[in-house]
Amino acid sequence: MKNNSREEMIKVTALLLQTKGYFGTGLNEIIAKSGAPRGSIYYHFPNGKEQLVIEAIEWTRENVTRFISEKLSLYNDPVEALQNYILDSADRFEQDKYFQGVPITAIVLETSDISDNLREACKKVFDSWHQVIADKLLNNGYEEKIAYDLAMALNAIIQGSLVICLTQKNADPLRKVSNFVPLLLKINNA
Amino acid sequence: MKNNSREEMIKVTALLLQTKGYFGTGLNEIIAKSGAPRGSIYYHFPNGKEQLVIEAIEWTRENVTRFISEKLSLYNDPVEALQNYILDSADRFEQDKYFQGVPITAIVLETSDISDNLREACKKVFDSWHQVIADKLLNNGYEEKIAYDLAMALNAIIQGSLVICLTQKNADPLRKVSNFVPLLLKINNA
Repeated sequence: MKNNSREEMIKVTALLLQTKGYFGTGLNEIIAKSGAPRGSIYYHFPNGKEQLVIEAIEWTRENVTRFISEKLSLYNDPVEALQNYILDSADRFEQDKYFQGVPITAIVLETSDISDNLREACKKVFDSWHQVIADKLLNNGYEEKIAYDLAMALNAIIQGSLVICLTQKNADPLRKVSNFVPLLLKINNA
Repeated sequence: MKNNSREEMIKVTALLLQTKGYFGTGLNEIIAKSGAPRGSIYYHFPNGKEQLVIEAIEWTRENVTRFISEKLSLYNDPVEALQNYILDSADRFEQDKYFQGVPITAIVLETSDISDNLREACKKVFDSWHQVIADKLLNNGYEEKIAYDLAMALNAIIQGSLVICLTQKNADPLRKVSNFVPLLLKINNA
């Protein structure tokens, strides 16, 4: 069986998770959209849907972490870099509505209670995002403990404001939140 | 038909939403748990599940907004008041796991795409929470525009960190976030 059918199924699952969440994403639709033969799901993913979703979360982790890292490398100054990343996310939110960060939050809320494997996979995504933000701060002279706490707080304010954006059908909350970045990043001198 | 059967159904729905989300909350379970006769759902809520859920969201809005307002009134100083509220939320998170804020986030993520009525109901919840936080800031001399933006940013960082708490199975992210409150509240003098 070709390996690209495995990759195709993971990618299709990742995209379905973004719009339909864990419970809304069904194996039949994954099979139909990936064009894979029915038996190939259990060939590639012996543990079924949970395993496939974990690999899709991992696929999202790799791609989004790389995306954030690239965005943050566009400016040397961490305040400029983070504000640019947040404002870019605001534009993307308004362009296609579905945003990289939100599906992970949705999966956490749907599954943290029923599957430690899924919860751990989502935790790993946030850990990676915190790491790339912390790296940016560490490279700019922030103390280690401050850098990690600040990275988590920045991810929290971004994820939280994305949910508020969804209720308002616009990205104003995300844009307003970017105004607080200079203040938050002063913690190193506080 | 007694009016308290209506209220009982709303309350049962609100509690089910907290643990099961919108799609996981079924009319059969609401009927079973509220002890109401089957026909009474459509008697009290002619538009069915969506209407019942909107009233449950409204019930949550009233109760949680009052709770936040009471917590914030315990200290005059807004930094102390907000830190106390966040640390109290961290303790509550670890005591019973389900937290007032998370279910609204979950409902937003499940339904903002499929129901404007539910999205508006959730928006109204966040608006009320922003209002009580803004009131605390306004009473302490913050400018109006700053007070509302800051209230939204504080709610965003709380809601976002609650999701991170779920992935870590502890309330450390919420406690760490409370350390950023003094810095964020300096925006009035920034």
